[in-house]
Amino acid sequence: MPPATRYLVGVDLGGTNIVAGALAEDGSEVLALRSEPTRADLGADAVIDRIVGMIEAVIADTVAQTGARPSDVVGIGVGAPGPLDREKGIVVTTPNLGWTNFPLRDVIAGRTGLPVRIDNDANCATLGEWWLGAAQGADNVIGMTIGTGIGGGIILGGRLYHGASDVAGEIGHATIDITGRRCKCGNYGCLEAYASGPSIAERAREAVSSDGDALLVRMVGGDLERITAATVYEAAKLGDDVALDVVRETSRFLGAGVANLLNIFNPDVVVIAGGVTQAGEALFEPLRREVRKRAFRPAVEACRIVPGTLAAAGVVGAVAAYKQQ
Amino acid sequence: MPPATRYLVGVDLGGTNIVAGALAEDGSEVLALRSEPTRADLGADAVIDRIVGMIEAVIADTVAQTGARPSDVVGIGVGAPGPLDREKGIVVTTPNLGWTNFPLRDVIAGRTGLPVRIDNDANCATLGEWWLGAAQGADNVIGMTIGTGIGGGIILGGRLYHGASDVAGEIGHATIDITGRRCKCGNYGCLEAYASGPSIAERAREAVSSDGDALLVRMVGGDLERITAATVYEAAKLGDDVALDVVRETSRFLGAGVANLLNIFNPDVVVIAGGVTQAGEALFEPLRREVRKRAFRPAVEACRIVPGTLAAAGVVGAVAAYKQQ
Repeated sequence: MPPATRYLVGVDLGGTNIVAGALAEDGSEVLALRSEPTRADLGADAVIDRIVGMIEAVIADTVAQTGARPSDVVGIGVGAPGPLDREKGIVVTTPNLGWTNFPLRDVIAGRTGLPVRIDNDANCATLGEWWLGAAQGADNVIGMTIGTGIGGGIILGGRLYHGASDVAGEIGHATIDITGRRCKCGNYGCLEAYASGPSIAERAREAVSSDGDALLVRMVGGDLERITAATVYEAAKLGDDVALDVVRETSRFLGAGVANLLNIFNPDVVVIAGGVTQAGEALFEPLRREVRKRAFRPAVEACRIVPGTLAAAGVVGAVAAYKQQ
Repeated sequence: MPPATRYLVGVDLGGTNIVAGALAEDGSEVLALRSEPTRADLGADAVIDRIVGMIEAVIADTVAQTGARPSDVVGIGVGAPGPLDREKGIVVTTPNLGWTNFPLRDVIAGRTGLPVRIDNDANCATLGEWWLGAAQGADNVIGMTIGTGIGGGIILGGRLYHGASDVAGEIGHATIDITGRRCKCGNYGCLEAYASGPSIAERAREAVSSDGDALLVRMVGGDLERITAATVYEAAKLGDDVALDVVRETSRFLGAGVANLLNIFNPDVVVIAGGVTQAGEALFEPLRREVRKRAFRPAVEACRIVPGTLAAAGVVGAVAAYKQQ
């Protein structure tokens, strides 16, 4: 009889959705994926109830789908937003969920009776792509997740790099324009202040306010507040000049940020994921061009800049991070 | 009889000086230091003759000073400028020496009969401070050398990080001002374009050209070309307003660059060395203040930002790099 496969549960705790699933310990199967919404105003208890309910459902599905016993599910990895203290298992702050010094690891372990390990969500997304996705097998990988913010993960020598106090990888908060836009973090000119989803929308709103006839304005029925990064890329695809400008500028900002990473890290792969990357080559082609203009040639030649390929990189990576801790 | 101490020679090959010395393999002694000038127009043969002559003199001094046998000197580490290929032992290009694809390692090994290993000069300077200087024993260290350019070295988990093709650590060529000054590297807005020695002098020249009465102008007898970073810091110390402005701005630029490193690497120590740091607290105090304004608090709290303490960090680090390879 072959040894029974062991399974691990991964949870990706986002500001708007919780995604959970199970993986065979060796990564050969990803199964029982499910997603539920969350909100800051739910309160911590309700969010924890939801997470625990999803974990129980994932374990039940895993047992049903594979014939494993419940005891074959041996641990839980959780990717959580915001600065956290891995050693203590604490989420220090999460603006999107409204938590402060929340003992996420021990609360979930107490409720499920399973060992739990936590890591930063952007770290997990990067590690997921490294384990089973676009950066498989690469030594040195920088991951960038462009969504509500711009998160980052750093893999060096095949292991997540966390820094002295688990803050490493905040590549969205590197200054690219020292006298530039105010960022939510309080600093000026952060990459995130230009190229996150909301920042793209904001720059588009500023651009169209002087051009009431723009397609982009008509697409949102004149209500500029309804402009999102998705609307901008859609309008650009339809040839709208204002949107095309914003898209070009976005790739220039991202290109400068990625070029910095190439000159600093000289990575094998930069993997970029998140909602904004649905724009595909409209984003990547000018971004790569900007990087070639800005970064050192041996760093450009050594590096692939690619979109993420996993639908649930955060879940896969939460399990991989569990295995690495 | 105790086992004989073994010695390694370190060579720091700069654009204007060659420094060499010997270290006991365990770092307990640094001895036989010597320095000689070099120039691009010397040609590779003359530079190599000089390096080999210095190595032979260092070995002779080591034997004379310690009673060791010549055969107790067992290897040579060389720190060299410019991108290089460690595996092949080749210096790819060095603008300051005018070399291209120069097989530095094998040439010196052939002439001395000793094993030779090469690494980047800024990497060596950082590793020297980690081994015996200001960053001793720290896990994660970023080194910054501010001179003719701004070089960088990255130590993670107590080992030099080189990246995919030995380019990692070019922190002087991270963009901090996306629409800013043209840099020698071809990019725009690099940190080096604002805060290297020549860039500080250039910004000062621009500032005084509208103020012919400035102390700074009188200090160079009206010949603006004679302004250097040292003159600027000297004039600032004497209370010259224009120079004080340039000094303040320089710390702001460096602070933004260092803040980026804190948000990205979350290091234990940032060690800053090179001619410009002779300005001491006039440079460091406002630099640290700018970092506190710009970087995440847990990263700021985890990190010491300190001047280098070794007179020959490059020599010490060339030996340390030899030992790590």
